[in-house]
Amino acid sequence: MGYPIGSDLVPVLKQSEIEQVVLALLAGAGVPRDQSRLQCDLLVDAEMRGLPSHGLLRLPRIIERIANGVTDPNARGDCDWVSPAFLRVDGKRGLGPVVALNALDAAMPRAREMGTAVVSIANSNHIGSLGFYAECVANAGQSVIAFSTSEALVHPWGGRRALIGTNPIAIGVPGAPEPFVMDTATSVVSMGKIHDHAARGEAIPAGWALDADGVVTEDAERAKQGAIAPVGGAKGYALGLAFELLVSGLAGASIGRDVKGTLDSTEVANKADLFILIDQPLAAFDAYLDELRNSPPADGFSGVRIPGERGRALRAERRQGGVPVDEGLWAQLLRLQQEVV
Amino acid sequence: MGYPIGSDLVPVLKQSEIEQVVLALLAGAGVPRDQSRLQCDLLVDAEMRGLPSHGLLRLPRIIERIANGVTDPNARGDCDWVSPAFLRVDGKRGLGPVVALNALDAAMPRAREMGTAVVSIANSNHIGSLGFYAECVANAGQSVIAFSTSEALVHPWGGRRALIGTNPIAIGVPGAPEPFVMDTATSVVSMGKIHDHAARGEAIPAGWALDADGVVTEDAERAKQGAIAPVGGAKGYALGLAFELLVSGLAGASIGRDVKGTLDSTEVANKADLFILIDQPLAAFDAYLDELRNSPPADGFSGVRIPGERGRALRAERRQGGVPVDEGLWAQLLRLQQEVV
Repeated sequence: MGYPIGSDLVPVLKQSEIEQVVLALLAGAGVPRDQSRLQCDLLVDAEMRGLPSHGLLRLPRIIERIANGVTDPNARGDCDWVSPAFLRVDGKRGLGPVVALNALDAAMPRAREMGTAVVSIANSNHIGSLGFYAECVANAGQSVIAFSTSEALVHPWGGRRALIGTNPIAIGVPGAPEPFVMDTATSVVSMGKIHDHAARGEAIPAGWALDADGVVTEDAERAKQGAIAPVGGAKGYALGLAFELLVSGLAGASIGRDVKGTLDSTEVANKADLFILIDQPLAAFDAYLDELRNSPPADGFSGVRIPGERGRALRAERRQGGVPVDEGLWAQLLRLQQEVV
Repeated sequence: MGYPIGSDLVPVLKQSEIEQVVLALLAGAGVPRDQSRLQCDLLVDAEMRGLPSHGLLRLPRIIERIANGVTDPNARGDCDWVSPAFLRVDGKRGLGPVVALNALDAAMPRAREMGTAVVSIANSNHIGSLGFYAECVANAGQSVIAFSTSEALVHPWGGRRALIGTNPIAIGVPGAPEPFVMDTATSVVSMGKIHDHAARGEAIPAGWALDADGVVTEDAERAKQGAIAPVGGAKGYALGLAFELLVSGLAGASIGRDVKGTLDSTEVANKADLFILIDQPLAAFDAYLDELRNSPPADGFSGVRIPGERGRALRAERRQGGVPVDEGLWAQLLRLQQEVV
């Protein structure tokens, strides 16, 4: 642990140092080596790409869930080809990335053979940032659309109660020099960002969330008990609801307010994941992305960004220069490691 | 033609009267009976569901395109199963709904057999409202995700030029008593709506569009020459761009500003369509939709709506009570019919 930059309250760590601690903690919780590597890669990748809400922050809960028996550290999931191109997966309460990557390993050769394959996962734990999987698949030369459902945190357009998941989508498209990978929720903002504002005592913009009474609030603390707005109003609501019905429906998983187990330490996770893989040649798009990058910026902007590229650049930078990690969180992880040893 | 309601400037027509005129016009343009029925159903359904921008308004251009030789009224498209579950379709410049419905007819039995099937369409004309296809497929018991690309009308987030299509998505999920069907663009509003405002001399809200210089405008007339905003800012931009790369890329179709042929009468259409069909049992969702409908409305709203239901209710009502049609448009269609006979 070392070389602070900017604020010396922020430890800047080498990727390998972080991985060592994460792997030790997972091993201490009883996760076999192969499995812990996958969970570790997912969390550290989010940290490297500047998505701390999907990074190390999640680790203490993952460990608690194993201790509480609602996550099985040994399970890799049961894969059942119920149709030639449709893989139904019972995650057997396994770790989210272990079950998902195991299923994708089974599905990708089938997608190559069939042109496409669909993977529906139930009974598996939090899958983390969908962009991680989209990038894996696209790097291997297949197009992918990835979905996951979540606890009900989002209000329907025109409503005031949290009834729909943040229901993210990621899309990966193979290309040179790098694949295109985007990843977004169907909520206007993540609950993690609202918690960040609350922790810093900052207000949130009107339009992000309603309070527990369903009234627009700029108080992040009150928003934590309320509901996040769907992105783009009626359109994001329609999209998030469609994902909820399709993804949960295919998996036979829970829906709406019945979804539990990705934000707590005691409930069996009953959300669902869906991957659509397409293995077909694609037209090149690098010249078009250049046209976007080089197009004139709007007032108040410095340029047009390509989704996914900022995170990728940050990751490359942090591989060299180290990864800033929240001080309190890092101290917590080191304490946990002391307990394990 | 008869029984005006509200304004007597709006003719209220029976569905069958409208269909008769549409079928006569298509027959006059040389469209064989089977093909004209599909094109007619698509346009009239949009009119019935309250989407006039995708309805009869499109008919004069469809006829002009046939006259100009850029649409082939006889083509149904060539279907090629390049992989067991991936159907590549060369539309052969056929009418959009003729090619798409013909391809879906081929793909649905395959999706039943394989669990899923993907259809990629190039060289076909404007496909109209994607919700029409999503409802067809969902009514037949399969889940579907439908995409189509368009001319570049939308600016990237942070940019000022129109470089991306409005790139809509529709999702249909089978259910009882009715399937769930949603349909939305990745732009904040359609160019049709901006044209409507311009025609009425009305301002548009700030945030809908930029003018030709890339500056925010509330002048609908200036917005027609400019660029529409992506829905939800960076998120809708990422989604629309992903659809553009995936849908056009798989079809080997044109991309960005090279896309032509759905808004003009002289260019060969070079956009793309994509359908993902999934044939698997699904959990019921009617109780959940009831929970949404019966949840308390937010301030300023009268209730929570389920996407697609307003259009379906309007269609049922109009089957009984008739369909109000724009007077100028109807007069134009009747004049065209006189020329044909």
